Amino acid sequence: MRGWEKNVRRTVPYVPGEQPKEKDIIKLNTNENPYPPAPGVEAVLRGMEPADFRKYPDPSASLLTEAIAESYGFSPDEVFVGVGSDDVLAMAFLTFFNSEKPILFPDITYSFYDVWAELFGIPYERQPLNDSFEIVKEDYFKENGGIIFPNPNAPTGVFMPLQEVEEIVGGNPDSVVIVDEAYIDFGGSSAAELARRYDNLLVVQTFSKSRSMAGMRIGYAIGSRELIQCLNQVKYSFNSYTMNETAILLGKAAIEDRKYFEETRNKIITTREKAKEKLNFLGFVFPDSQANFIFARHKTCSAEKLFKALREAGIYVRYFKKPRIDQYLRITVGTDQEMDCLFAFLEKYLKETAEEGGC
Amino acid sequence: MRGWEKNVRRTVPYVPGEQPKEKDIIKLNTNENPYPPAPGVEAVLRGMEPADFRKYPDPSASLLTEAIAESYGFSPDEVFVGVGSDDVLAMAFLTFFNSEKPILFPDITYSFYDVWAELFGIPYERQPLNDSFEIVKEDYFKENGGIIFPNPNAPTGVFMPLQEVEEIVGGNPDSVVIVDEAYIDFGGSSAAELARRYDNLLVVQTFSKSRSMAGMRIGYAIGSRELIQCLNQVKYSFNSYTMNETAILLGKAAIEDRKYFEETRNKIITTREKAKEKLNFLGFVFPDSQANFIFARHKTCSAEKLFKALREAGIYVRYFKKPRIDQYLRITVGTDQEMDCLFAFLEKYLKETAEEGGC
Repeated sequence: MRGWEKNVRRTVPYVPGEQPKEKDIIKLNTNENPYPPAPGVEAVLRGMEPADFRKYPDPSASLLTEAIAESYGFSPDEVFVGVGSDDVLAMAFLTFFNSEKPILFPDITYSFYDVWAELFGIPYERQPLNDSFEIVKEDYFKENGGIIFPNPNAPTGVFMPLQEVEEIVGGNPDSVVIVDEAYIDFGGSSAAELARRYDNLLVVQTFSKSRSMAGMRIGYAIGSRELIQCLNQVKYSFNSYTMNETAILLGKAAIEDRKYFEETRNKIITTREKAKEKLNFLGFVFPDSQANFIFARHKTCSAEKLFKALREAGIYVRYFKKPRIDQYLRITVGTDQEMDCLFAFLEKYLKETAEEGGC
Repeated sequence: MRGWEKNVRRTVPYVPGEQPKEKDIIKLNTNENPYPPAPGVEAVLRGMEPADFRKYPDPSASLLTEAIAESYGFSPDEVFVGVGSDDVLAMAFLTFFNSEKPILFPDITYSFYDVWAELFGIPYERQPLNDSFEIVKEDYFKENGGIIFPNPNAPTGVFMPLQEVEEIVGGNPDSVVIVDEAYIDFGGSSAAELARRYDNLLVVQTFSKSRSMAGMRIGYAIGSRELIQCLNQVKYSFNSYTMNETAILLGKAAIEDRKYFEETRNKIITTREKAKEKLNFLGFVFPDSQANFIFARHKTCSAEKLFKALREAGIYVRYFKKPRIDQYLRITVGTDQEMDCLFAFLEKYLKETAEEGGC
């Protein structure tokens, strides 16, 4: 061991879904939107002046922050932006979960939460979902140093009614409660409205899913002025300029097109509902998803085996080899055409394996 | 005080130079490059497909990392990229300065170092520059948890010969030594070559100055495979996808144009050398700068007064109201034309104030 190594922070990173470089793949593994960004994004891109890149961007990214605030009927000082919702969440962990008491989050959830907690030395306790993969709200009324959960939850897709979210937020006035709404636009109701009444609630959303902009890395949080101010203090103590010029301008164009946003999310919801029927028909069971993915288990066929067979056929889905969920596949809702390819493969594969004696 | 506030991390952020929104300002306050990015950047920008933004970018930003590695004759696994060198430095503090012993840096230096140390709870000790604003290398041979300094130093512009840098790196095998080379391309010699021989040396550079891309937020570090691997572990525990698609592609185009880079940096060096003569003529004294700025004190006129007068005239320079340097202005080297405007104003102003009885 080298001398300097003893001072190195050791972590076990989050592993994101693969980004294969091959072009002819059906990519249903990272919950990307199958549709391109709003048309206004291209118009703004075409009009950009590269000479402007020589200057630092606006550190407060105010054009973008204001557009987001406007879109939700909040004030710009109730909005925080970051390099994807992961950056926003990392900053929020660093800012708000600075206590000796454990933070609380579900046992089955976004697998970055425990990574951030470990990175920043934050104690944590996992609260088990019930057998229907639902968050049990009573588990969040114990003493804690903060609370975080996705709604809809990942990778289950299960949505918790706002009434229950409000009970958790209201029942924990001494903690910051973060609701991670990466998938909220595909059927759930956002807790953002509650942020008008609860100053301890931070709602985090992203451009990566419903805004078709994963490649631009834009996330944001909505919360009380007090919370956003705390978050900004830490952000400005980490990196003054997180949002580059293109993210600011293209993000603004994306959020301003409400019509396109409604159209594409509705298309995805329609495809998802059809996919539920088809998966059911093919022998899958799954919790009812309000996200742009379905978390499904086949009644007879092993998830790992299916995952590998799909991958060989050029269809990428996500598989987590973890307790309680190792028989599930997380399947992103793509276009109708992509889903038809998936179902055609599954139908054929399941029929053949059944004939050969089953999975 | 609200209940949740007791768990909030309190910080005093770094304050970046102003980014005024008015257009007709002579902006010599944030060390931006007065020339636009390389022509290839525009070509790549024009050819971008917004539909590609729907997908996550390559988390390893390999096109960019490989182009940087190629440019310096290193291997891609000896290069780390981030959202500006501030992001790279923040990650490096978090990764490598994880000790009970104090890290060491100069008393007059980049004012983000103590902010990061405070943010992450890292003990630190400032080592005073000598009266010529030089780093005293002997101060860095005491027990420490890590070392960081800019070369050339900021905001002084003073370059430390590589021989002395090597003595510090070689004399501290049990510490990671970070050399922050934001301004290295304007006259100094990079320590990157030393990274081939010392596995405890991390050299950090940026696209914000010599590559004319402050607006795109691209920084990078060069170091041993072992160091870069540690840095990546922490980065992937913070945010999997830090570099957006445009930063990856435009950054690649910028670094590949060596001819344009040489041309523009030589123009800046020429303008700086002329500016030194002129400032000297106007009654300023300054340490000899190897950066794209000059850190100057007027023999008779107060820096704060000059700063305010310049600002009223629409000429922005940087003023730090801090011990030892509160009589200095940091003046970015702009175009010849911009510098002529600055000198014309100073000449007139200093003459008038002298006639009125002096500053």
